[in-house]
Order: sequence, then C-alpha cells, then structure tokens
Amino acid sequence: MKVGILGAGQLARMLALAGIPRGVQFVFYDPNPESCAAELGTFICGEYDDYKKLNDFASQVDVVTVESENIPVETLKYLQKSVTVHPNPDAVGTSQDRLLEKTLFNTLNIPTPEFYAIDSAEQLEQVANKHSDTLVIKTRRFGYDGKGQAMLTKPEQAKEVWHDLGARPLIAEQFMSFSREVSLISVRDQQGSIRYYPLIQNLHKNGILVKSQTRLNDPLQSLAEGHAKKMLSELNYVGVLVFEFFVCDEVLVANEIAPRVHNSGHWTIEGAATSQFENHLRAILNIPLGATNTFSDCTMYNLVGSMPDSKSIMNLENVRLHDYGKSPREGRKLGHITLCDPTPGNLSAVESIIKQ
Amino acid sequence: MKVGILGAGQLARMLALAGIPRGVQFVFYDPNPESCAAELGTFICGEYDDYKKLNDFASQVDVVTVESENIPVETLKYLQKSVTVHPNPDAVGTSQDRLLEKTLFNTLNIPTPEFYAIDSAEQLEQVANKHSDTLVIKTRRFGYDGKGQAMLTKPEQAKEVWHDLGARPLIAEQFMSFSREVSLISVRDQQGSIRYYPLIQNLHKNGILVKSQTRLNDPLQSLAEGHAKKMLSELNYVGVLVFEFFVCDEVLVANEIAPRVHNSGHWTIEGAATSQFENHLRAILNIPLGATNTFSDCTMYNLVGSMPDSKSIMNLENVRLHDYGKSPREGRKLGHITLCDPTPGNLSAVESIIKQ
Repeated sequence: MKVGILGAGQLARMLALAGIPRGVQFVFYDPNPESCAAELGTFICGEYDDYKKLNDFASQVDVVTVESENIPVETLKYLQKSVTVHPNPDAVGTSQDRLLEKTLFNTLNIPTPEFYAIDSAEQLEQVANKHSDTLVIKTRRFGYDGKGQAMLTKPEQAKEVWHDLGARPLIAEQFMSFSREVSLISVRDQQGSIRYYPLIQNLHKNGILVKSQTRLNDPLQSLAEGHAKKMLSELNYVGVLVFEFFVCDEVLVANEIAPRVHNSGHWTIEGAATSQFENHLRAILNIPLGATNTFSDCTMYNLVGSMPDSKSIMNLENVRLHDYGKSPREGRKLGHITLCDPTPGNLSAVESIIKQ
Repeated sequence: MKVGILGAGQLARMLALAGIPRGVQFVFYDPNPESCAAELGTFICGEYDDYKKLNDFASQVDVVTVESENIPVETLKYLQKSVTVHPNPDAVGTSQDRLLEKTLFNTLNIPTPEFYAIDSAEQLEQVANKHSDTLVIKTRRFGYDGKGQAMLTKPEQAKEVWHDLGARPLIAEQFMSFSREVSLISVRDQQGSIRYYPLIQNLHKNGILVKSQTRLNDPLQSLAEGHAKKMLSELNYVGVLVFEFFVCDEVLVANEIAPRVHNSGHWTIEGAATSQFENHLRAILNIPLGATNTFSDCTMYNLVGSMPDSKSIMNLENVRLHDYGKSPREGRKLGHITLCDPTPGNLSAVESIIKQ
C-alpha cells in the first residue's frame, strides 16, 4: 500500500516511521525542497497548484492525506477526482477558516468564546467599543504557532491591528481567562468507529507548544469525547482529528480543531498501545483501529530553535529523544522528548538540560 | 551521525527504523540489489570484495556495523583501516567458525556439547565409531537457519554426510536432549557497561525460528548473564551480542553466539524500554545505553514464506504486525508479530490466523 502525504515536515516523517514497519510506502509532496520527511520515501517537490505534478503524485498512491490544515482545499478537491482523500476536503476547509470552524462549534452546541466576524478596521473598532473585555484578534485563515494573532485592549488600537494582521478577514474573540489548555486526540475509521486518547494538558510559550502532559482520568474526558464525537460524525471524518479546548471554570471551551495528527500527541509513540500516527494510517487505509490505552502518564517537551546535547538527554533513563533531522532556526520545531516516567526528578533533569 | 551497515536485510531495516527517529542516517552495503533496508537510506550494491565500492561506503559513514555474522572478516579488516568498525572483526570472525566459537566457550568455562573437529570423511567415521550417541554434524562456517547441518546416527553414514555437507571442514557435536532453547540478548558499550534483556525461550521448526517468548524472572537469568559477561569482556565487544543456549537438566549449554541484533529480540521494539536495535546503535555511536526493563511478557511469531491477512491480524488488540516489505518465497522471513499481552486467548487467535 502506498500513502501520499501533502506536506513533508516532521508530522509526515512520523507518519512514515509508523507506517514503514507495517509495510506501507510513502510519497511526499511539498513545495519546500528541504523537507525532513523526504528521505523516507519518494519525494515530489511542487507547488500546490502544479496540476501536472499533482497528477504524478496521485498516480503513485492508493490514498492521499495531509500533514497540515493549510493545504488548499482546491488542491484536495482536484486530487479527489483521481484518488481517495482522507480526511475529506470539506472537513479540512472548515478547519482552515476560524469563522466557519467556530460557527460549526456553535451549531453543534460546543461552547466557544464569543466571536465576531471582522471585515474592516471600522468593524473591528465597533466590536471593540461594545465589548469591554480584551479581544483576541486572529486572521481567519493560515494562522499557526501563534502567527496571525494580536491582542486588542482598547478600541483605538483597531486600525493598527487591522493593518498589522494584513488588512484581511479576521475574527475577534473574547479573551478567555482559562485555568488550563487541553487537547483531545480522536480518530474515526471508515465504518464510523471512534477511539480517543486521554486528555492532554498543554503549555504554550509565544504561541508555540512547549510541553504536553497526559491527564489520565481527567474528569473532563467524557465531556471532551462527547464534543469530538459530534464533530467527527458531522464532518463524516476519517483519520485523526484533534480538539483544542480552554478549561474555564471546569467547562471546556473549544478553541480549534486540527484535521491531522498533532504535536500534543507525540507521546503516543511510546506511551500508547497504538500511536496517533499509526491510527491515522489505519483509518485512511481502512484497517481496524488499534487500541489507544495508555500505560502511564507521559510528558512531552518540544525542542524549539536548537537541539540539546543528545548524550546528556540519552543518559537519562526512560527519556526518548526524537530528532527530526532539520537544520536549526529560531522558533523552529526540531525535535521532541518524551518521558513515560515523569517523576518530578526526571522532569527537572530534562528541563535543566533543555533549559526550559 | 551516519552509520554504515554491511547487509541490508530486515535486521538492517529495523536498525534504521530505530535510528532515524534519533536523527541517525544510514548507508547500507549489500550484494543483493533487492535488499529490503535500501529504501531507508543510501544503498550501495556491491560484493564484499569490491574494494572501490567499500572505499566509497567507508568514506560516507562515521561507524560501520554488521547485520550478519557472515560478512567476510577480510572486508571488516579492510574497512577498519579507514573507519571505526563495531563489533570488532575478530569477534565476528570467532562467531563465524563453530570450532573457534566452541573452543572459546570452553576456555571461558562456559559449558558446551562435546565436540570434535572433522576434516575428512574418515575422521568423521572414526568419531562416530567411538561416540555411541547421535551426532549433529555442522559446517564450521556459513551455516544459518538450520542450513549446513545433518544428523548422524550410524558410523556408516559418515561418507554420505561428509559429501552432502560439501566435503569441507565440519564440527561433530554431541546431540543434546534439551528441555528448551533460550537466548540472551546482551549489549556492551565503549566504556564496558553491559545491559541484559530477559531470557527468551525459542521454538524452531526445520531449523528456522518460529516463536520467541520472554521469560521474565527465569531462574537461569543470572547464570546466562555471567556467561555473556565473560564473553563480552574477552572479545572486547561493542554492540549487541546474543547467546543461544540449550537448557539440559536446568544447566545452560552454549550453542552459539551471534555478533548482531537477533531475531529472538524483535519483541524489544514494543516490549522493552529501549529496543535491541536502538541499544546496538547507542553502543556503536558511543551514546549511553538505554534501559532494558520490560513491561510484561511478550511473544513473537515469525512470518515465514507468506504474510497472513493483515486486517485479521490488526483487528486483534495489542498485536503488532511487522512487514519487512520482501517478496514472498518459501522459507523466507517476511515479517513478524509481537504480542505484549500474550494471554492464551490472544495467542490462539494469532496462531489460528497465521496457521502455526
């Protein structure tokens, strides 16, 4: 079986590392010639509107999937004419537009922050005037790792924020004073069976995820699963879908969904019976989903900008270092570390090495 | 870091799958153009006496290792002039010759079956005459998976056996009536630290390993470790070394060593904190060894000759299917299955699918 992945970064790389042991082969498609998954299969370097190269890509694979929600829906719909695409382009399209996404949350009775569509500086100022709290202003499309976001505390900042964010469609959201951020990784197969991983508590710095910790037996688990179940069915979704929630007064407030494997689920490689990567492949290849049971709480740290001394890390027992083989650059995710035995001593030993 | 592996079959493939997540890259060297590890790195297809290609290979890597004990010692010694080679060529050479190997066992006070060097049909007949029990006759070199072996029950078979086995140096060994066969996987780093995995009980059919089961808390564990420790130190060994023993009246009788990762240790991928593959790489790359603790008993089945229906296998919870991506052929190892929860029900479900 051959899987085509649009995007050839570290998520595609980890998908391939999960699939190759099961005899699955991979074709990667990415505009970036330096893509770190390329060495694990056939690599086609092309733009997402290069239909000749997309035809070549589609002809080589049994199914196409994405490692990013930012693949143009037109690309997915074009590919769909000649090859199966999971998740479906409409689901990916919904996740690309924060307004569509939040509107759908509300339709499904999944709580969200209050939000407003913004199409001009004037409109932004009006909303700010009638809303006394701080607003989080986000571009509707193509935001990630905190990019395309700004805080607005006074109405007079409206014009500046509008221009800073590129004078394009925005969404203004009520700023949520949350006690914690959690994510739920869910996966749905082609028969509609769903599996969930335990809730994960996430810590972001400068908009980039830096630490994820599983929360076995979190009291909000079944509430989160209920929200995910409604969304998966509504989107007729196949593959891994991830929810990010704010926890506000022990209520889950939906922030966003990601139609792909997720950074907060990297711990599943060592910590769960079946990793998120393998379960995504199982779903899109129409193979029964694997068990998602977890052996112990796990903690994951992202390695951003530079890699730590690998010998020091590997000298710690039960600490797993992942190196994506990317060249270092400020703010770039280069690897991660998973601890399946996150005692306070083990955590502080890792934190002192990675200087977090 | 770049590791060169002589041999590009499934053991090299699993070494690469353990190394790539840690940022290690691989160059494989094998005379067989259809080698299943080739897709996971740079592949050089060459004979083991093609010194031009070997120079090219050596120039690309930081360290060279082997996936087979049958790599010519001359090749290893040639490479050693320009690049580090682990395990050392003399250790590999010892394991290539059953007479050298068994003599060294005896030197180290590790019990073996009685054995005799055989250099002619007449000598074989003489040994058979004075030895009333059945003898196992093996070629001294290049035997694997039961190839190059014969049983001798009567002295008059001596001539036939001598010719059947190729009229070349043999070893005649006392046939051992053993209660079980076990293996011990050990690994030694460049500072002399040693780690051991739990003893594994093995079942062979027609000379090919078909099933391995861990034996946590086997009473023979410390005896086996003592034998391995002596051998590792004697050979100044770096990397994974595997012992195969017969258990006869609860005594360990050494059968052979393998200077490489081993089929009986494939369960360590899912079942141990650090797999044999990763620990071999850590040893040869001078990185501290990882923990070898094991979470539960595991059972592994080899998939020989043909692959079972993958959906049926993957429908079973906690059963891990490995497909080496090789074309089917009788007697060929194509993949394996690991169960980390080997209840009688789970085992029989797997056995009924793979028809073992």
